[in-house]
Amino acid sequence: MPGLRARSIAGLPEIRAGDDLAALVLQALPQDDPRDDQLLAIAQKAVSKSEGAIVRLDDVVPSARALELAARASDEAAHQLARDPRAVQVVLDQTEQLLRAERGILICRTRHGLVCANAGVDASNASEPGTLVVLPRDPDASARRIRARLRELCGRAPAVLISDSFGRPWRHGQLDVAIGLAGMRALEDWRGRTDAAGRELHATWLAVADAAAAAADLVRGKASGEPVAIVDGLERHITAEDGPGAAELIRSREEDLFT
Amino acid sequence: MPGLRARSIAGLPEIRAGDDLAALVLQALPQDDPRDDQLLAIAQKAVSKSEGAIVRLDDVVPSARALELAARASDEAAHQLARDPRAVQVVLDQTEQLLRAERGILICRTRHGLVCANAGVDASNASEPGTLVVLPRDPDASARRIRARLRELCGRAPAVLISDSFGRPWRHGQLDVAIGLAGMRALEDWRGRTDAAGRELHATWLAVADAAAAAADLVRGKASGEPVAIVDGLERHITAEDGPGAAELIRSREEDLFT
Repeated sequence: MPGLRARSIAGLPEIRAGDDLAALVLQALPQDDPRDDQLLAIAQKAVSKSEGAIVRLDDVVPSARALELAARASDEAAHQLARDPRAVQVVLDQTEQLLRAERGILICRTRHGLVCANAGVDASNASEPGTLVVLPRDPDASARRIRARLRELCGRAPAVLISDSFGRPWRHGQLDVAIGLAGMRALEDWRGRTDAAGRELHATWLAVADAAAAAADLVRGKASGEPVAIVDGLERHITAEDGPGAAELIRSREEDLFT
Repeated sequence: MPGLRARSIAGLPEIRAGDDLAALVLQALPQDDPRDDQLLAIAQKAVSKSEGAIVRLDDVVPSARALELAARASDEAAHQLARDPRAVQVVLDQTEQLLRAERGILICRTRHGLVCANAGVDASNASEPGTLVVLPRDPDASARRIRARLRELCGRAPAVLISDSFGRPWRHGQLDVAIGLAGMRALEDWRGRTDAAGRELHATWLAVADAAAAAADLVRGKASGEPVAIVDGLERHITAEDGPGAAELIRSREEDLFT
């Protein structure tokens, strides 16, 4: 089994709306990268910013529901985002189903089917004050676009993974998961297969794209704001075609036994 | 930011009750390993087997509740484990709270506070037919014991992480998480800290031990049954003292907003 290697890519500028993210990544990559058998893992915010997935709070008119939720959060030790009805409206606009609203945090199922706090809307680290960064409209399409653009620019196309840091039930801390993917299988299916001794395998349906997202996040500099890592050693999961993307990881409500 | 590197360790024999797991790992490791700044990531089952955390089905007397749950599972396309009242009893014995019983899967909160299918009880890949492998009684203590034994045997002590593959809500596939840990911080806390530009950070409380568990699982051979990986590049999370372990990752029911 070959090893896994993940490295952060330093030297990317602050990403702004309209930036050619693939070109900026190429400039920052070491000369021999990328290769077709590598994975390029990008933090969601860099992708959102480059796509202009940014909302100006002054442009938002909060609904009655947003006003109510913000008022309810105001007397709690709430995140700043939860107390501003305009910010709450931005979250609601990204939300298909509000699962919970408590202690200044909205737990949302987004239009993409992702379940996370505040629908992935990010008040921190926006390029300009008074703006919020939202998730890409279609993160799998974003990943495919970046992969195609890399191929166009340099003739090589690593798999591309877009990740975001989500909290989860029952466990403390956030973990990066794949929200967009092109050129890599999201799941490795061992169901019905046996090990070398002919025995049924224990873990049989592995979320390899989420594992890769988590591995990549271990090397990205937080304080230095490094959004891109490159991962070697995932060859057997990487595909020439873009494939179904991270959408494959979304469990339908009907088949979910955990909630 | 230094890179992350994970490698699987080949050549471990099938682990049996009473085996000195640390000694077997040392025999299988390359000569320069382990180092104090490395992480040794071990699949739970190898630890459970070495500790004799194995239950013989013939020794189990199912309760009325186990008989009822098994009968309910019998007419579904259920896992074999769910249809055997003795196996269900083994799961119940490991369970503090049964969260859900459906389609032949029991979603349990274990005595350790872990939420997973069948309380982590594993029908597959047991050393002998008619036996089930259960989770270690105290996986943090197991990790501390293995770390101490490595130090005793070779004078060096990597951090030790014990992981298991769990399903999760809302997303397909299983992901390895840390259930036992010694010598590594489970969480990296950036709350209240800012990035290089003075802006509040987005992801602020990172479950680095779970990320390391997921990364290590990407390299462990499934079909070849390799239970051990060694990870370089986590120096800043590794500590001389054993620390509070993976118990730090358990979220109390009261503070859980997701469920």
